[in-house]
Amino acid sequence: MAKTSVLSGFPEWLPAGRIVEQHVIDTFRRVAELHGFSGIQTRAVEPMSQLLRKGEIDKEVYVLRRLHAEDGETDHVDPDRQLGLHFDLTVPLARYVLEHQNDLAFPFRRYQIQKVWRGERPQDGRFREFYQADLDVIGQDVLPAHIEAEVALVMAEILAALPIPGFTIHANNRRLSEGFFRAIGLEDTQGVLRSIDKLAKIGPEAVATLLREQSGATEEQAQACLGFAGIVTDDGTFGDRVRALGGTGEEVEQGIAELSEVVRRVNAEVPGVCVADLSIARGLDYYTGTVFETFVEGHAALGSVCSGGRYDRLAADNRHTYPGVGLSIGLSRLVSRILSADIAHATRGVPTCVLVSVSSEDERARSEQVASRLRARGIPTEIAPTAAKFGKQLKHADRRGIPFVWFPGADGDEVRDLRSGRQVGADADRWEAPAEDLHPRVVPTGEGA
Amino acid sequence: MAKTSVLSGFPEWLPAGRIVEQHVIDTFRRVAELHGFSGIQTRAVEPMSQLLRKGEIDKEVYVLRRLHAEDGETDHVDPDRQLGLHFDLTVPLARYVLEHQNDLAFPFRRYQIQKVWRGERPQDGRFREFYQADLDVIGQDVLPAHIEAEVALVMAEILAALPIPGFTIHANNRRLSEGFFRAIGLEDTQGVLRSIDKLAKIGPEAVATLLREQSGATEEQAQACLGFAGIVTDDGTFGDRVRALGGTGEEVEQGIAELSEVVRRVNAEVPGVCVADLSIARGLDYYTGTVFETFVEGHAALGSVCSGGRYDRLAADNRHTYPGVGLSIGLSRLVSRILSADIAHATRGVPTCVLVSVSSEDERARSEQVASRLRARGIPTEIAPTAAKFGKQLKHADRRGIPFVWFPGADGDEVRDLRSGRQVGADADRWEAPAEDLHPRVVPTGEGA
Repeated sequence: MAKTSVLSGFPEWLPAGRIVEQHVIDTFRRVAELHGFSGIQTRAVEPMSQLLRKGEIDKEVYVLRRLHAEDGETDHVDPDRQLGLHFDLTVPLARYVLEHQNDLAFPFRRYQIQKVWRGERPQDGRFREFYQADLDVIGQDVLPAHIEAEVALVMAEILAALPIPGFTIHANNRRLSEGFFRAIGLEDTQGVLRSIDKLAKIGPEAVATLLREQSGATEEQAQACLGFAGIVTDDGTFGDRVRALGGTGEEVEQGIAELSEVVRRVNAEVPGVCVADLSIARGLDYYTGTVFETFVEGHAALGSVCSGGRYDRLAADNRHTYPGVGLSIGLSRLVSRILSADIAHATRGVPTCVLVSVSSEDERARSEQVASRLRARGIPTEIAPTAAKFGKQLKHADRRGIPFVWFPGADGDEVRDLRSGRQVGADADRWEAPAEDLHPRVVPTGEGA
Repeated sequence: MAKTSVLSGFPEWLPAGRIVEQHVIDTFRRVAELHGFSGIQTRAVEPMSQLLRKGEIDKEVYVLRRLHAEDGETDHVDPDRQLGLHFDLTVPLARYVLEHQNDLAFPFRRYQIQKVWRGERPQDGRFREFYQADLDVIGQDVLPAHIEAEVALVMAEILAALPIPGFTIHANNRRLSEGFFRAIGLEDTQGVLRSIDKLAKIGPEAVATLLREQSGATEEQAQACLGFAGIVTDDGTFGDRVRALGGTGEEVEQGIAELSEVVRRVNAEVPGVCVADLSIARGLDYYTGTVFETFVEGHAALGSVCSGGRYDRLAADNRHTYPGVGLSIGLSRLVSRILSADIAHATRGVPTCVLVSVSSEDERARSEQVASRLRARGIPTEIAPTAAKFGKQLKHADRRGIPFVWFPGADGDEVRDLRSGRQVGADADRWEAPAEDLHPRVVPTGEGA
């Protein structure tokens, strides 16, 4: 027997941890469906030509090869046939939309919760395999601007329903940033964005150096960029501050108007949840309008737990372009933090509410009948694996975290609450489990059971 | 934009198909949890040394390589570090149980629904990426025999709750088969099992030839094996027929007793669902007791949709062995058949129950308030993406399969059932969607909506 080893970067949970993860997934799904988003799944693999089509050769893609690939096969060299594991759910969505455009109704509202893989160095504390949970609305040729606030609001409702502390959605607008950089005379807008994206990591001085050395900024231009990136406000005043720093022109004004509207609309529904934060850059080049990042109170080191924005050209063919707005939660990272920082926990590690004891193997059929009657009314039930002494059966239930043990008896049954030790007469066709005990629940640590 | 292409062997569903798949997954989960099985997930990758440890080098494993793996790295040559995608959920379960043995309570009851990958030739009509749904009970050192019938019964309850025609569980016992082959003088029991496993595919004459040529059987021995494999019965008479064919000895008698008990217990709960079928061989060598295959009425070509059995040595280390009983559904293949043969379908392709119309963009806020009130009572609702003419909004709802359109009005709201065309006054705080319309349902084709 080969010995097992933990693979760094490939997280796995014990059953109680999986209950927390499943709760996060179920919550995402419930809220997304309540807002009319369809759940889809795409295959885990894409041709390498698709995965690298944005020229992102720095992505650490896992390339596949069949163990018994024959010498003559070209699958592993031809980029149209060579397969890799998807590293996000956006590239697959673009392909799915193009492939099925005739069978989808637009705007297409979809959510998608699946694992993605990235071969990053695990010493960075990053996962190599993790769940992403994405929410996007894709239009055909057009997509109204109000969808940007709508997607942010649905995501805010999802995050508010999760067992995490408060959070703030930080919004910016790509048009505003790029328009501002051009207005002050910097044409390398992508380079400036990439430098500003590093602000939290390397600090303002190092960013100023990058701006001077890599984007040809003067000291004055670099300081204007830092001033711009320092604007964080939840009211409409950021426009005047941008103008005061030299931000003029149509592009800047359009960006100010769009960002003001998004912040206003999100806060109108959930007061104080959204701020305009002009440091938000989102390194990826495909965003064209509003961009979002989301931070959890007291967990700044986690970075953004939910990011995304507007992209006017997710996909296109000869007939149509497909603009979209989307947000994505790094679900495994969030769950990992919930578990490691003990932010929340499952009230028990098994679905079982009742263990039916077995007095002797000859009486097992009676215990099975009790279990069937409880299950028929939706009560998760299992039967003691052996007719051990009752003390051992109680211990078995206790070790598994099962709250109730049922004792079938010739003169009537009894049920015992293992936490209080209280044992009462009960009828398997009528007994009700307390609502909070029927299924394991996920509760903030410090409150609840 | 690179053109997209369908990858043979990597199935994907449109949103309505995904609703069917999700329904199958939800049903599996609901019944498994009702019986106290914990849901776990394992990482998608295992070291190649684990994947190949049973010497199954014929498995078409997908091997991973990081695109930017450096020349000096040995990850892709050292079998303890080289990673492959798992091809089933049993190898990962064995590793998970060993790794977490100190944190699990035994017998460990787990279900697991995840994708697996096999690089098989897609022209065989097989998938290269598909969902498996597994149910196993793992003991530490010991596992009572009654668990075998219990796992089969839980799986029968799952299958009965799925939108498929009737099914039959075919059971055999590895001890019985091997004991019989030895009793009639054939020592190459694995070879005989592998040949008999091909019976449905190549027919009795070809199997007899294989038995003679590969396992050294005489014509008489080959005929005895075929006679044995021809026994299919739902009563207890198979024992006498096995003895009549020359099956004697302790191993045979123990196998007869075990198989009789499993068939009796399963049929006691669900009459007629289980037959003893001595042709069931299950090629894999790790089964040691009861083995199962399951066939759906009218879909024999699908082969077994749910297979498994008892294995006395799933995993072991210096201190413990871990015997188990498990069954596995080839979930994607089943869903693919449900969709392609139109056995069942979703009543609509979107979660949305109500589309709230928008009379003008200035009035969008009013439509949003209506939508919030409906969602607050759990009614999946979306808002018309544009303030187009009402006819166009109705058409948008109809094309998406949304059953109701809501018209907010200054003098009170109205709601229209798009199927009947009936439009009535309604209040967003009180209106109830008909129970069958609240969420999309999966119904057998021919019945229901």
